[in-house]
Amino acid sequence: MRETWVVGAASTRFGKLAETGREAATRVALAALDSGGLDPRRIGYTFVANCFGVAERQAHLGPLINTALGIPEVPSCTVESACSSTSAALHEAFVHVAGGFIDAALVVGVERLSHLDTLAATSYFAMGADYPFETHNGATFPGLYATLASAYLKEFGTRPEELGAVAVKNHANAARNPYAHFQKEISMATYLGSPVIASPLRLYDCCPFSDGATALVVAARDSLPRPPSEPLVMRASVRTGAAGDIQDRGTMTGIPATRAAGEKALRLAHIERSQIDFLEVHDCFTIAELMALEDLGFYAPGKAGAATRDGVTAHDGRLPVNPSGGLKAKGHPVSATGAAQVFEIFEQFNGRAGGRQVPKAEIALAHNVGATGSSCSVHIFGRR
Amino acid sequence: MRETWVVGAASTRFGKLAETGREAATRVALAALDSGGLDPRRIGYTFVANCFGVAERQAHLGPLINTALGIPEVPSCTVESACSSTSAALHEAFVHVAGGFIDAALVVGVERLSHLDTLAATSYFAMGADYPFETHNGATFPGLYATLASAYLKEFGTRPEELGAVAVKNHANAARNPYAHFQKEISMATYLGSPVIASPLRLYDCCPFSDGATALVVAARDSLPRPPSEPLVMRASVRTGAAGDIQDRGTMTGIPATRAAGEKALRLAHIERSQIDFLEVHDCFTIAELMALEDLGFYAPGKAGAATRDGVTAHDGRLPVNPSGGLKAKGHPVSATGAAQVFEIFEQFNGRAGGRQVPKAEIALAHNVGATGSSCSVHIFGRR
Repeated sequence: MRETWVVGAASTRFGKLAETGREAATRVALAALDSGGLDPRRIGYTFVANCFGVAERQAHLGPLINTALGIPEVPSCTVESACSSTSAALHEAFVHVAGGFIDAALVVGVERLSHLDTLAATSYFAMGADYPFETHNGATFPGLYATLASAYLKEFGTRPEELGAVAVKNHANAARNPYAHFQKEISMATYLGSPVIASPLRLYDCCPFSDGATALVVAARDSLPRPPSEPLVMRASVRTGAAGDIQDRGTMTGIPATRAAGEKALRLAHIERSQIDFLEVHDCFTIAELMALEDLGFYAPGKAGAATRDGVTAHDGRLPVNPSGGLKAKGHPVSATGAAQVFEIFEQFNGRAGGRQVPKAEIALAHNVGATGSSCSVHIFGRR
Repeated sequence: MRETWVVGAASTRFGKLAETGREAATRVALAALDSGGLDPRRIGYTFVANCFGVAERQAHLGPLINTALGIPEVPSCTVESACSSTSAALHEAFVHVAGGFIDAALVVGVERLSHLDTLAATSYFAMGADYPFETHNGATFPGLYATLASAYLKEFGTRPEELGAVAVKNHANAARNPYAHFQKEISMATYLGSPVIASPLRLYDCCPFSDGATALVVAARDSLPRPPSEPLVMRASVRTGAAGDIQDRGTMTGIPATRAAGEKALRLAHIERSQIDFLEVHDCFTIAELMALEDLGFYAPGKAGAATRDGVTAHDGRLPVNPSGGLKAKGHPVSATGAAQVFEIFEQFNGRAGGRQVPKAEIALAHNVGATGSSCSVHIFGRR
């Protein structure tokens, strides 16, 4: 297996795109190639993520991006795995490059939903759940994650302030991130005073609908002698699955697919948890960040909230989590989210994270969930 | 690279599904596993194609299929490349297995559109084209392929009867195919008397909207000692791209992505055209079959029509083309189409094609196009 690197990365600011998804995707693809010092003609395959292109009446985005890049002959496909779509696309890129089928791949995640009303956007999102059993009965993602949160709070006696600590921290990080949707801090009082959306989750427990586009360039080490940016060495690229419906799983206080992906990724990377300097995890709702930290084995069940409250996971804490601001405050343009986690790690490794720079960036983990955890991706990155 | 086989395949009849796409997908997945003698627990990854799941309000289909198969922990993703979606999914399965990342993969293509009206279905299909430049200006696929047909007819002086010969042949084959949407023969008089849809294309030049589901099981030879069916050895799995818009290409009388994919596949497989016993090619419109045969190098430009008229490409001819009945008459459930071509080859290799059995089935080629040729897949299969 060839050593495989993320050699380039670029992103739009998340929030609202003034251009079409296709235009934004092309722009970040060019910027990612530039950051990796790679001529587009080196690309052997383009993997796109664009779950809700249908909202722009455009599927089959790969050939349009490749044509705009001047490489129309390069094959492409679009990869969907709900909110873990670009992580799934990155996994395909990894398999193609590490397996020696191509030297380099482009991964582009893009979503544009802000022109839809909230009901339409929620309906699109909800297609990642189980339609006849969940969505059709009114269970969209806020309700489903609220169900998980209810079980968790009941089991561990977690205080609302511990969920709130995730929101306050991630907003503080996003306030230092020029790519973030919400670039403002919030106080615990603001959190606690925000309306309940799906009990026990409040407004500030929920990530926003965002537009955004993020691109990554993946290349075999032996095909690229000297990239202009510090590359991320892909130490592990793991995907797992689980029953779609939360009632069909063994637990409601965690996400089994995360546990399996985390264990496997650490094993493949030959990395101990103590070696990981920081994490980007899937915090579509605050409860999801706590579960992720516990499922990945960094905290015992029920203990991640207290650690968050105590500042351990702040960007300058002992184990920074979501220095980007996370889905919660950086934003969640479904198909760009997984790539954006890797973009943040790329920026941190290159010392470009400004006021949110973590103390140490040698080894990092990205964790991305599809739906309520019926798909999961974990990537571990190190330095060359 | 590990020798990689298609060890199992199964399909619904194409036409109208009485069940949901998800149910049909699960059913054919089980049948494909059964035909390959493979326990579902051997599957390492599930690749789904389901372009217009949104029409059933369901994305993220992989975990639902895997859960129904009793393997919820297996990772999955959905792959889209317009009408070449399952071929793109098959390529991912090939790369994962041949590259040694997993031992076996499941490929499931499914589409259900028959509950939509024609306008809505056409709108979904058209998302595979270039929305702002083509679809938005009224150019849906019948119009785009009619443009290609006009250029072709003008260049080569092709008679309507040569396009008609494709339709008559493919309907004759489909009449012998219990999986086909249209199981009836048509005469040349019927063809010539059918209304013009987009000049010069008539009703019987066009494939139908179909529902359908087809599944393939891909496995490494060394992981499976003795499959119950005759497997297809994957001699080449190639994908290519081209400019999305037909006016941006060097030719309008052929599809450049087909030429590139065909050349590369033959080279990788170390196969001469003369060794290929039969083909399944992408005939969404009759003109597309003629172009495919010429772009793949089996006929000189402008010559495939006469060969078709002369019976060379009949199921019992010298070079059978689309013995299944093709997209034209077997039907075209977008995301099942690529897999269905391979299913036909599987049935032919196993001598189960009944009245449409080709004289010799040792080496076969499958050719699948996305949109008007901005994506293309060519697979070549041999015997072990």
